Amino acid sequence: MTTHIILDTDPGIDDALAILLALASPEIVLDGVIAVHGNVSLEQTTRNALSVLELAKASRVPVFKGCDVPLVKESLLSPETHGASGLGYAQLPEPATKPQVRHGSDYLIEQIMSRPGEVTLVALGPLTNVALAIRKEPRIVQNVREVFIMGGAIQHPGNTTALAEFNTFVDPHAAHVVFHSGMPITLTPLDVTYQCIFTPDDLNRLLKIDTPVTKFIADAARFYMKFHDEYQSIEGCVINDPMTLALTFMPEICDYQNLVVDVDISTGAGLGNTFADFYNYEKKKPNMKVATGVRPRMFMELFLERMEKLARKIT
Amino acid sequence: MTTHIILDTDPGIDDALAILLALASPEIVLDGVIAVHGNVSLEQTTRNALSVLELAKASRVPVFKGCDVPLVKESLLSPETHGASGLGYAQLPEPATKPQVRHGSDYLIEQIMSRPGEVTLVALGPLTNVALAIRKEPRIVQNVREVFIMGGAIQHPGNTTALAEFNTFVDPHAAHVVFHSGMPITLTPLDVTYQCIFTPDDLNRLLKIDTPVTKFIADAARFYMKFHDEYQSIEGCVINDPMTLALTFMPEICDYQNLVVDVDISTGAGLGNTFADFYNYEKKKPNMKVATGVRPRMFMELFLERMEKLARKIT
Amino acid sequence: MTTHIILDTDPGIDDALAILLALASPEIVLDGVIAVHGNVSLEQTTRNALSVLELAKASRVPVFKGCDVPLVKESLLSPETHGASGLGYAQLPEPATKPQVRHGSDYLIEQIMSRPGEVTLVALGPLTNVALAIRKEPRIVQNVREVFIMGGAIQHPGNTTALAEFNTFVDPHAAHVVFHSGMPITLTPLDVTYQCIFTPDDLNRLLKIDTPVTKFIADAARFYMKFHDEYQSIEGCVINDPMTLALTFMPEICDYQNLVVDVDISTGAGLGNTFADFYNYEKKKPNMKVATGVRPRMFMELFLERMEKLARKIT
Amino acid sequence: MTTHIILDTDPGIDDALAILLALASPEIVLDGVIAVHGNVSLEQTTRNALSVLELAKASRVPVFKGCDVPLVKESLLSPETHGASGLGYAQLPEPATKPQVRHGSDYLIEQIMSRPGEVTLVALGPLTNVALAIRKEPRIVQNVREVFIMGGAIQHPGNTTALAEFNTFVDPHAAHVVFHSGMPITLTPLDVTYQCIFTPDDLNRLLKIDTPVTKFIADAARFYMKFHDEYQSIEGCVINDPMTLALTFMPEICDYQNLVVDVDISTGAGLGNTFADFYNYEKKKPNMKVATGVRPRMFMELFLERMEKLARKIT
Repeated sequence: MTTHIILDTDPGIDDALAILLALASPEIVLDGVIAVHGNVSLEQTTRNALSVLELAKASRVPVFKGCDVPLVKESLLSPETHGASGLGYAQLPEPATKPQVRHGSDYLIEQIMSRPGEVTLVALGPLTNVALAIRKEPRIVQNVREVFIMGGAIQHPGNTTALAEFNTFVDPHAAHVVFHSGMPITLTPLDVTYQCIFTPDDLNRLLKIDTPVTKFIADAARFYMKFHDEYQSIEGCVINDPMTLALTFMPEICDYQNLVVDVDISTGAGLGNTFADFYNYEKKKPNMKVATGVRPRMFMELFLERMEKLARKIT
Repeated sequence: MTTHIILDTDPGIDDALAILLALASPEIVLDGVIAVHGNVSLEQTTRNALSVLELAKASRVPVFKGCDVPLVKESLLSPETHGASGLGYAQLPEPATKPQVRHGSDYLIEQIMSRPGEVTLVALGPLTNVALAIRKEPRIVQNVREVFIMGGAIQHPGNTTALAEFNTFVDPHAAHVVFHSGMPITLTPLDVTYQCIFTPDDLNRLLKIDTPVTKFIADAARFYMKFHDEYQSIEGCVINDPMTLALTFMPEICDYQNLVVDVDISTGAGLGNTFADFYNYEKKKPNMKVATGVRPRMFMELFLERMEKLARKIT
Repeated sequence: MTTHIILDTDPGIDDALAILLALASPEIVLDGVIAVHGNVSLEQTTRNALSVLELAKASRVPVFKGCDVPLVKESLLSPETHGASGLGYAQLPEPATKPQVRHGSDYLIEQIMSRPGEVTLVALGPLTNVALAIRKEPRIVQNVREVFIMGGAIQHPGNTTALAEFNTFVDPHAAHVVFHSGMPITLTPLDVTYQCIFTPDDLNRLLKIDTPVTKFIADAARFYMKFHDEYQSIEGCVINDPMTLALTFMPEICDYQNLVVDVDISTGAGLGNTFADFYNYEKKKPNMKVATGVRPRMFMELFLERMEKLARKIT
Repeated sequence: MTTHIILDTDPGIDDALAILLALASPEIVLDGVIAVHGNVSLEQTTRNALSVLELAKASRVPVFKGCDVPLVKESLLSPETHGASGLGYAQLPEPATKPQVRHGSDYLIEQIMSRPGEVTLVALGPLTNVALAIRKEPRIVQNVREVFIMGGAIQHPGNTTALAEFNTFVDPHAAHVVFHSGMPITLTPLDVTYQCIFTPDDLNRLLKIDTPVTKFIADAARFYMKFHDEYQSIEGCVINDPMTLALTFMPEICDYQNLVVDVDISTGAGLGNTFADFYNYEKKKPNMKVATGVRPRMFMELFLERMEKLARKIT
């Protein structure tokens, strides 16, 4: 049985790779894409979502615009990580298709409520759209099938502040809403994604196939690799988002713990810190499943094979 | 020219009086009422809005349900102030009408966007619905005519914590969003409302007319007076909300200052504190007009006359 | 019976005036002066204390050095208010006397513990020294006679941030320690001091006597007046500190309320806010007497007469 | 050359073991012990320090009393971890010796300033005494030889809250002062101490020698093991403090990183969190050396051998 997926995302280089992986994976059906502010502006993430779908000849997948700023905090974008366009050095043509008229959060609500227990949400950016949908229609919490979230850094250092991962730092209040909503969440924090490095060797393997898809991946990844080298001395780049997507159909890539997880929404140094109460001092019920271990090459092989297949198909 | 008003409210005793004042005032047209959690639960505030409209034979005014919990914080209701039902000792019959299907925030967006510059919003409860609408459709900020908000305590002590007024304490994050949105706001804080006491004498004046409306006011107000006596040693009760409504057509009740106002959303002792930077140390542009002076009897006379007129009309 | 006073102070223009008022007042004996960082650096406040005592021919009064930075926060000085030297345009000669060797907080402890119930502490700057003494010798709390503190802004706007008064903002943690220590505190917040304006007319009255003391007051006050005009549009200057000192022997200058007062030590917008729980929502015992009303001219007449007397005496 | 050590400590079971290890180690001279509030009250930690020294026939080592409450926060003790007396099931006789009259922080200042570059401070409890000393005499920062601190949990979960280790949670403000003072600090966080488990087998090895010292260790450790089992499912007990002491003369037990470390002093969920900016986003100079790796059995062998030697000597 295939899984119906809605992607909430802010492409962004690794978000774009997650879209491609979704399209390349027969186990899932990508029903729709909702754009959100984050790596770059909402205008740009919407455009990028449309462009990447066109690149993969998948313009049938509808794209919706969501929120353009965080729930409470001021806007924070990350062009130094993803480039001014959000897709590194890649230059995709202006998309021919347009985003849908309805707001992304309304689309999400409508899809979940019209097919109870069938829609899986994969959220790869700041959680603003999801929080908005929960506050507007609290019943989506009980009716969504599963929610996969790329975000947080449990014991791993943050990638934005000492303690905070980017998605959570950009909209900690939205993360707070979603984490405590009661949704059946699987979290993919930096603790596992930072073990999955897309290396220059991986890229070279893909480049043996010379088609628009591999060219796009190369142009996007090279910028991303440059960032990782400069800021974190990592050779290669961390592709957080496609791994999160992969867990929807290949959960065995990771090991999991059921944990009590919270987000710091204080005004202190810990703002945006996503942390687990491992010893459960507060005696609370676990509120999510957290990926705490990973088999990096299992994921990377999957990713490379799927990209090769897609690259050969789209010429 | 009449002013078109949408009331966002959590009735609540003084909210109910504001609805009655709106219906009794020829200067304005009450286009719709949006319920929000606050004094009591959303279910109850929705029911109360419908019941009060029925009491005043105004069921033509549509009622919409909004959010049932704050934007980020956990729910906090106030049955000790307004009674379990939210209307003190008043017992209104189960309303015959039902709330509209659409979410209140969508109604607000649609009204403002379809009649740019014509809709005046009067918000008398926690600002959750308004914040949600702003985040979903940021353009309402430029297209709303005016926004009158009952909330905050600038230099006056709070009525919920030492520093915080109830509406702002219940949803400080929503207030933060609205205050910094750029909407043309007039704020009515406790600094002025606590000077407008509805006294037992005022009540006795109304009771000379014996109709359902005056009976309702009496039953509601007696509970409210008991609260004010017990908690704050005030003889009579503070009817914050109708005064805020009255400013939409009789602004001369108050004096105003253009101020830089902020809400404390820290996790400290000041959570929910609404404060002004009087000396403007931060060199910011004023973000609202704040009622800082008031002519209490000018308002109270207006209120009593309008209630008398309404009471005579509805028998 | 005379009152034995220890002054903890950061001269500072109005601190200097408080020293002069102490020396000019037969009701009190100034036993010692402890310098603290604040308006200017500890080095400078120590030097200024010595210089002002020499100016008034009172070098017999020992001066002690206290802390050079706040208890927890980073240092914050205020040369724009008090001038680079801390005494405005006044130029006092290098003092001939030196500060004592012992730390000010040890002097304070020793004095209080050796004469239980006899020593009155008047604290006019950040409360670092006092907090340090309390933590080192908690028994001073029960053995000090009275503590008069210039600090805080209860309902009045802050003079440093929207909410915070300078002394409390500079060291909110020390204020927190002192306020909750159990000491018998009388607080003089901006709410009363900002009603006592030392005007150009007052200055001209003093200048009819032409001696070093009046020249000093004029040189110091002119700078201070310039600051108040520029930053707060006040004609004249607010001399917070001498009024606090005056309350030790002429309490009738102010009216008081026993209040539950706290200091915000969060990392939010309210940091350093000194606030009272007027309705006592927390059901706590009042922890201080707060001056909430003032007879400004009663104080100003006292101050001017004493300065005239001192000016005539010191020639 | 022997190292001169001053121990600042709150015995406490593992603190007591650290005192014994200090006495049993020829590489160091224990010049004095300063007691601080923490695991149990100051009265009790002082008594315990004296008793443990008497047990080891080392009453020549002077004991000083320090602070009885944290710098800013309210007192928090931990009898559930260390027992009502602070020494688990151990019952030591009332000590014959008395603490010295001077305050511990003054002793610390005097020792460091009189022997610049010679005194090594080992701080095993909340850092209140050390912070007080720094604020009173800032020059100790440049004149202390080295400072070894047991505290914090960098990437390891806290042992008191989800994020905070006990010593730092009890007095985060003092830790903040010490961490940012410029002292040459080596930190031993839970990340390494929780890898050093004192097991029942280790205890049995010691118990082959039947003398007062081994009996004391057994009685203390059994309580501690019970706590670790109940709260953290650890078989055995974590003896944080003696390992910190051991690093003064056997640094090769651990591996270290020079890091930028801070303490969360907000009022949020992260209060007391000790965290490192591993990627140094803030571009600051490392402020301490942190033990991030450990050879557990190297330490445990040292500890057991020394305890055996001491046990045989003291009969």
